Amino acid sequence: MSIEISLESHTSGIAEVPGFTCSGVPCDVRQKGDKKRLDVALIYSDIPCAAAGVFTLNDICAAPVQVCRKHLQSGGPFHAIIANSGNANAATGEEGYANAVAMVEQTAHLLGHSSESVFVCSTGRIGRKMPMQAIKEGIKAAVDVAESNTQSGINAATAILTSDTRPKTVTARFTVDGKTITVSAMGKGAGMIQPNMATMFALIATDMLIEQPLLQEMLKKATDLSFNRISIDGDMSTNDTVLVLANGLSGVEPASQEIKDAFQSALTEVCVSLAKMMVGDGERISKVVDLRILGAKTEEDADKVARAIGNSLLVKTSWFGSDPNWGRVIHAAGYARVGVQESKLNMFYNDVPVLVNGVAQDAFLSKWKEVVSQREFSIRLDLGLGEASYNLWTTDLTTGYVDFNKSE
Amino acid sequence: MSIEISLESHTSGIAEVPGFTCSGVPCDVRQKGDKKRLDVALIYSDIPCAAAGVFTLNDICAAPVQVCRKHLQSGGPFHAIIANSGNANAATGEEGYANAVAMVEQTAHLLGHSSESVFVCSTGRIGRKMPMQAIKEGIKAAVDVAESNTQSGINAATAILTSDTRPKTVTARFTVDGKTITVSAMGKGAGMIQPNMATMFALIATDMLIEQPLLQEMLKKATDLSFNRISIDGDMSTNDTVLVLANGLSGVEPASQEIKDAFQSALTEVCVSLAKMMVGDGERISKVVDLRILGAKTEEDADKVARAIGNSLLVKTSWFGSDPNWGRVIHAAGYARVGVQESKLNMFYNDVPVLVNGVAQDAFLSKWKEVVSQREFSIRLDLGLGEASYNLWTTDLTTGYVDFNKSE
Repeated sequence: MSIEISLESHTSGIAEVPGFTCSGVPCDVRQKGDKKRLDVALIYSDIPCAAAGVFTLNDICAAPVQVCRKHLQSGGPFHAIIANSGNANAATGEEGYANAVAMVEQTAHLLGHSSESVFVCSTGRIGRKMPMQAIKEGIKAAVDVAESNTQSGINAATAILTSDTRPKTVTARFTVDGKTITVSAMGKGAGMIQPNMATMFALIATDMLIEQPLLQEMLKKATDLSFNRISIDGDMSTNDTVLVLANGLSGVEPASQEIKDAFQSALTEVCVSLAKMMVGDGERISKVVDLRILGAKTEEDADKVARAIGNSLLVKTSWFGSDPNWGRVIHAAGYARVGVQESKLNMFYNDVPVLVNGVAQDAFLSKWKEVVSQREFSIRLDLGLGEASYNLWTTDLTTGYVDFNKSE
Repeated sequence: MSIEISLESHTSGIAEVPGFTCSGVPCDVRQKGDKKRLDVALIYSDIPCAAAGVFTLNDICAAPVQVCRKHLQSGGPFHAIIANSGNANAATGEEGYANAVAMVEQTAHLLGHSSESVFVCSTGRIGRKMPMQAIKEGIKAAVDVAESNTQSGINAATAILTSDTRPKTVTARFTVDGKTITVSAMGKGAGMIQPNMATMFALIATDMLIEQPLLQEMLKKATDLSFNRISIDGDMSTNDTVLVLANGLSGVEPASQEIKDAFQSALTEVCVSLAKMMVGDGERISKVVDLRILGAKTEEDADKVARAIGNSLLVKTSWFGSDPNWGRVIHAAGYARVGVQESKLNMFYNDVPVLVNGVAQDAFLSKWKEVVSQREFSIRLDLGLGEASYNLWTTDLTTGYVDFNKSE
């Protein structure tokens, strides 16, 4: 027997979780005189929380990430996440670090908790000094207006966006002995999404009653199956952050394997759902491709092949052109250098055969074209070398992407 | 004392080397009814040659590469290279291999030498059957008209081009005891140029008197310092080939360290010159960037950082937009994951300071912009971690590239 999990996207996000309030307010972080764009978000639980976090592996990691790592090590309890868009507070040196600390201190002070109970997340332009006067006003306003309703949830989800075109929220629920557990998240992605995440936030709240070490282990697993499997342009940001706060209000503990599995599934499904939304909202993309590598000797090999294909400019541009160019796909597979053998390759575009034992099924050319002309399609490539597999959600490379990113 | 080497580009290429003849003829490999486009090239020496070769590391390696590797192992002597553009004879299975063999057999037969004395190179579309009737006529014509004059040299260099916009030739000469040694080459690049080369040919001829093992060692060194240091889009092709034929007609052997050094320099300079021409003629690029990573712990680390930067879509698009976005450069350096520390970074655009000990030199903003607006500029990034360095020639990513590659 297993516990049924309901999953819903485009929800009120954090506001769906009992015991949490949130807000999104404008304070012109971008310093463009825009007094309407929401750019500071607060997530708050007055009830003490356990927390877990997964962060960028970039050597150049932004000040807020450094602060989060430090606070996480303190062991908690935790109460809040303060987040902003418009400025990444990355490559900003000691002053940047001091500013990140100032942000948590102010938030903690206003909420009446210790500094270490607050996390901070920043995203936006790298190498610019944080406009602290504006941020200070933003934090004050965010604390003042934090509530637990649909609007505050949407506002919070909106305030963390950069080049995303829409807010991203998702909620999973399951019931144990008549008690409902909620796992809800808001995220921002687009842009530099890749292997080990990139300028992406996934901020998650739950009322599960769970301790930090187990929560950390489960978040890591959920992240490996979701955010680490999306790739838009292969870049990895300085600010990637996945955080979860668990306030225990449901009273449900992971007391049995069944409950543990249910919570892991809920957490993973929330992350996968958010990851897919991020890919689908990648900067100026026109195609989303579900890439599945099968028949590899090891999962690591399958991963390498998936990333070689998913990050190949020539493959990505052919998708943009709706060109079912299988030659480019297998040529990219070949340079992953895991011992791919042409005569063992079997490939499908959706369910249409492309290669059978390395031989192109040219009779299906028009069907191939039909598939790769769709906004979403899958590619299954079986290497015929073993039993391991890996999947990656990726996108095409468009002229729009290049134009959009050519200057900031 | 060292021997002076003269280097000249845009020469007659192979035709400059005593004892070699060459040709470039049209045979409509592309099967588009174009009877004028040159697409089969021959390089020939009636005098037996030593040879050396460096090939793609892609698992999916094209039939002609497999044939070349096999022939090279036979130890020679060698006489000719037959090459075509328009069809890569890659991912073509057993029939493709048979076709590559048929190409060398016909060439060898017409020239009156053994099959194993002939190399074959093909470039162009992957996964298409070679049009053998056309190729057969092309090979016959190429053998018939091979000569040793300017036009034949240029024709040969033109016949191997695909998306290149111009033929690429270079010649180095040096003199030992009144005897001149010539090293001359023709190449094709553009497109998928990257780390371990990619749809690139460098076909080199020399009249140096040298044996295969030493020639192979010296070619490998020249390749590491040239073709392995260029990157346009990070893709690696199935057909990359660097070949050198040495017919010994000069009578000069590498009898002393000085002569050996001189030949190594000539070979390396020819390869570097050709590599730079390939980058400069990359598909629809608008900027060529000479990227130098200094102060790394090891050369391997410096290499990783250079490729992380040089292959970053966000960095490349910022160059396209003439945006001096140092944040993206160091963020890419950070995900090479060699232990980069922000406060130790020093960076220059040409000679203009960008970062001093990690601090941006904002006063120079307009000068940065001036530099990155040029068609060619250099970026020096000193990691401050050690003594090792690496350089990479790379390009921007343009909307033109995406448009050009979106379908074939």
